[in-house]
Amino acid sequence: MTRISFKEMESTIAQAFVRAGMPPARAAACATVHASSSCDGVYSHGLNRVERFVEYIGKQWVDVHASPTLHLALGAMEIYNGQLGPGILNAQFAMERAMQLATANGFGLVSLCNTTHWMRGGSYGWQAAEKGFISICWTNTESCMPAWGSSSCCIGNNPFIMAVPRKEGHIVLDMAMSQYSYGKLEVTRLQNQRLPYPGGFNQEGKLTDDPAAIEATRRVLPIGFWKGSGFAILLDLLASLLSGGLCTAAIDKSGKGSSGSCSQVFIAINPLAINTQEFVDKVLNETIAQLQSAVPVEENGQIRYPGESSLATRQENLRLGIPVDEAVWQKVKALAGR
Amino acid sequence: MTRISFKEMESTIAQAFVRAGMPPARAAACATVHASSSCDGVYSHGLNRVERFVEYIGKQWVDVHASPTLHLALGAMEIYNGQLGPGILNAQFAMERAMQLATANGFGLVSLCNTTHWMRGGSYGWQAAEKGFISICWTNTESCMPAWGSSSCCIGNNPFIMAVPRKEGHIVLDMAMSQYSYGKLEVTRLQNQRLPYPGGFNQEGKLTDDPAAIEATRRVLPIGFWKGSGFAILLDLLASLLSGGLCTAAIDKSGKGSSGSCSQVFIAINPLAINTQEFVDKVLNETIAQLQSAVPVEENGQIRYPGESSLATRQENLRLGIPVDEAVWQKVKALAGR
Repeated sequence: MTRISFKEMESTIAQAFVRAGMPPARAAACATVHASSSCDGVYSHGLNRVERFVEYIGKQWVDVHASPTLHLALGAMEIYNGQLGPGILNAQFAMERAMQLATANGFGLVSLCNTTHWMRGGSYGWQAAEKGFISICWTNTESCMPAWGSSSCCIGNNPFIMAVPRKEGHIVLDMAMSQYSYGKLEVTRLQNQRLPYPGGFNQEGKLTDDPAAIEATRRVLPIGFWKGSGFAILLDLLASLLSGGLCTAAIDKSGKGSSGSCSQVFIAINPLAINTQEFVDKVLNETIAQLQSAVPVEENGQIRYPGESSLATRQENLRLGIPVDEAVWQKVKALAGR
Repeated sequence: MTRISFKEMESTIAQAFVRAGMPPARAAACATVHASSSCDGVYSHGLNRVERFVEYIGKQWVDVHASPTLHLALGAMEIYNGQLGPGILNAQFAMERAMQLATANGFGLVSLCNTTHWMRGGSYGWQAAEKGFISICWTNTESCMPAWGSSSCCIGNNPFIMAVPRKEGHIVLDMAMSQYSYGKLEVTRLQNQRLPYPGGFNQEGKLTDDPAAIEATRRVLPIGFWKGSGFAILLDLLASLLSGGLCTAAIDKSGKGSSGSCSQVFIAINPLAINTQEFVDKVLNETIAQLQSAVPVEENGQIRYPGESSLATRQENLRLGIPVDEAVWQKVKALAGR
């Protein structure tokens, strides 16, 4: 397995973005997020998304020079138009602004209409946690999942993130509404394996753990069956109505895939506006201790908190280098002219 | 099947609460929520919870006279102490106050520490929707579900609600973190049936659709396996840290079951502070139309939006009367002295 150092990956991606027309500082900021995603084990939205992002710049679906403009300010809530700028930069701006509002008000909500793919949603939960803020954020997307009861894709696989800062390791939930991503289906199929648990329906309408059968029907399973389907619908409606932006049905009509003018919400809360640090620590310690003292399913098994695996992967990849698919890495190097 | 009119159920429950020591106006308000839950088809948290609530009053786990007191006001965010008052009244108060804050600021967040079981969480989503507000709310609970990777109950089955007002029928998601409630397992077992989809693990650690096998292990399945497990943990942490109240691990130690000083969050948003009514209607219509035009799995099947079934059940039960379990109904009548 090829492993690349964080610095090398980051600078190579930055150069690829500069060559695609991005100003250097912006390219560097985006590259850091892509490299961090791969470093945390979210390979699908890290290095592996560089080529597609460059393609979107080429098609002018993303405006590398655009920045969000304020559309409406309502105290601790602000609505911005993302102007189809780079999704990563727009999202970082929005979370940063939500934290500023939370510094002043205890709480801040920033929504973005007309933005583009933010890549790995968890990035913005980690961003807020690093600065000591609790956060919630989500985005809508184009349709890529059947609603419960349907066999055709009509709802978005909208990622939802909640994060709580903690000095021993932030607690970060980053989940999409499907049980498995299409990336996970593909990887599992290529390895000739089965999914750990059923992940969708086959041609006969039966639940299956065969990734190829699910790829064929595109009937990926929403988490919790009807529950995740409903959650996806509500996340979409709220993203649209809180930002004045497009809903999934309208994004579908835009014809620009997952970067087609989507809508996002960013909430930041300062836990120390409400509690003492002592109380916060007590809640976090009590909760983690309760998880760690539960009976593991597997002998000597470990019960992990959300975000724990990402942190462990990050530490390993920083030490050993980030594993890459050799073909993908050569492609990104070529884009960087290296 | 015995069916009881809404009015009769409501007044009987109210009388039961008055006889348990509740002031009449408070008893009436709580009774309306219990009867409405049964009317909407959420039987487990309607009539069927009356006896247990009366029991909790008797044990002084709920103070029938208490009202929330303001602990901290931070502009559009306020934190209250529920003083262990009736969970329904505290939650109604909190959502009402969140709507007042949203009227003034576009957005309002109210959290409650030290409150008691709110019964059906969806009630507060419907409450906000009826007044034209978008809402999000959740509560934490005592441990009743194993975290992913564990076989012992160590996390709460924390309900999460999102609702959007819509004149043709509000869109309301009301979901707990387990695939099925213990009530659903019991009902399915008593009917000698299987669950529609696997809902937990059996003694051998295999996924099963046999309700009795799951009741035996108490290994109910979180929605989306590890995802719902993580979501439950984050909802708990945020409920606690946003209200300064107890987290699940601390509720467990209180030994007062699901009414033991829990923590809740209520968010209200005025969609018309951000958008025109015309835009809101467009988003809702586009989304519902997209769902309705999807390919149904079953021939002539219908793809429903969240809340659609509740509304249909409500209309039917208002017309025909609310179905009751005869034994439960007789018990509540006895509590009412009827």
